[in-house]
Amino acid sequence: MPRYALTVAYDGTDFHGWQRQEPPGRPPLRTVQAVLESAVRHVVREPVIVMGASRTDAGVHARGQVAAFTTTREIPTERLPMAITSLLPPDVQVRRAARVHETFDPIGDAVAKGYAYTIVHGSPPAYWPDLFERQLVYRSWHALDARAMAAGAAQLVGEHDFASFAHTRHQRDSTVRRIDRCDVVEEGPNRVRIEVSGNGFLYNMVRIIAGTLAEVGRGHRQPGAIGEILAARDRTIGGQTLPPNGLCLMWVEYPTAS
Amino acid sequence: MPRYALTVAYDGTDFHGWQRQEPPGRPPLRTVQAVLESAVRHVVREPVIVMGASRTDAGVHARGQVAAFTTTREIPTERLPMAITSLLPPDVQVRRAARVHETFDPIGDAVAKGYAYTIVHGSPPAYWPDLFERQLVYRSWHALDARAMAAGAAQLVGEHDFASFAHTRHQRDSTVRRIDRCDVVEEGPNRVRIEVSGNGFLYNMVRIIAGTLAEVGRGHRQPGAIGEILAARDRTIGGQTLPPNGLCLMWVEYPTAS
Repeated sequence: MPRYALTVAYDGTDFHGWQRQEPPGRPPLRTVQAVLESAVRHVVREPVIVMGASRTDAGVHARGQVAAFTTTREIPTERLPMAITSLLPPDVQVRRAARVHETFDPIGDAVAKGYAYTIVHGSPPAYWPDLFERQLVYRSWHALDARAMAAGAAQLVGEHDFASFAHTRHQRDSTVRRIDRCDVVEEGPNRVRIEVSGNGFLYNMVRIIAGTLAEVGRGHRQPGAIGEILAARDRTIGGQTLPPNGLCLMWVEYPTAS
Repeated sequence: MPRYALTVAYDGTDFHGWQRQEPPGRPPLRTVQAVLESAVRHVVREPVIVMGASRTDAGVHARGQVAAFTTTREIPTERLPMAITSLLPPDVQVRRAARVHETFDPIGDAVAKGYAYTIVHGSPPAYWPDLFERQLVYRSWHALDARAMAAGAAQLVGEHDFASFAHTRHQRDSTVRRIDRCDVVEEGPNRVRIEVSGNGFLYNMVRIIAGTLAEVGRGHRQPGAIGEILAARDRTIGGQTLPPNGLCLMWVEYPTAS
């Protein structure tokens, strides 16, 4: 049967995360998966399960989530994005669609993912954050030293045990992951963007990386401490978990064959 | 008694406009004036009335609203913005404060106001609007010709009777106003910003100007029609009223003496 992969963007502010949630005896929560399945179902006129590459948390945004579904219908892929988007609320868009192999697994086949975490920093009157983007960035009242953060970020690159950077309920057998890039981009005098990519991320991992680098940025930790935190393999040694609103899933990469 | 003028920014999305609304027998609506008065009252520890220069509608934003209040307390103006903002929800900020004459009238003393109306235009797949700014811009599915819009906008400049560009319930004796500038700025291939300033604006006037210029931009009217619409002095001849979310009050100007 035909299987399709969608590239999906959403503003996570008003969603209870990606994954469908149907608490017993209560109405289902508004999740991206539920909203998307409902729209796809109207397009293909049959029930579908839409699987996402990343189960983003409540409040986390996406510009390049990948979601796949199987249907009995043959649909021209060029028509799919608009056909689905026209049935979606304004905070979700399907930007692209591709026909994929019928065994395509958006989670298992992913070879890399990229996230961005944006922080605006500094205090009035010298710096007033733009209130119109308050749901898209994390706001630090302390000025951050982006160079120190970049020096700390560089130590995360490579294959490491990220137990110090994972929620204790990570539910994984191994906490070893490979980070390919971790850059701290100065987007302006009061704005840094942490761009991190790798082969997989543990629960809350990017938000804890961002929180630890923010502590480096405000001088509470030395950049060199990152290596020690990794070596400790202890969540209590890592930095705080920053809020979800600064986080955005930027892209998911697959082998060209799929 | 001391009187202070505040420069206020807000995201109008979750407000029922500027003006306090207390429907009988029902809880007061969430308005910028009510939220601001509550914060100012906590700072000065006495009841205050906060008067705004412009009674912006529900959904309309502001970067430079001006609001004034009188209090028995002497407060250092440099402390006021942060003292008030720290008590405000994240969708309102007091950016500046100034001591003003005790007869300062934010409405009556204003000599000019500036508004911006932002439109993104075009359709997928060629153009996907950025969903993260959906509450800050108006979305036109039709491509707009910014040059034609600018030619139409130029005819609005000067002193005219704007009856064709006012909600019929404008409640003003005169519909004559002076527009100092009306520019159509191309902010990108799919984005125009109508910047308009003048000595006063009638109810819905900027939103009707934007709607009429959008009709020129998509070729439904000729730029030269603007003069005829003005001459008709008839609201039914003017264009449609665009939604509030694209509109932002940018600044209010006062004589330097006040």
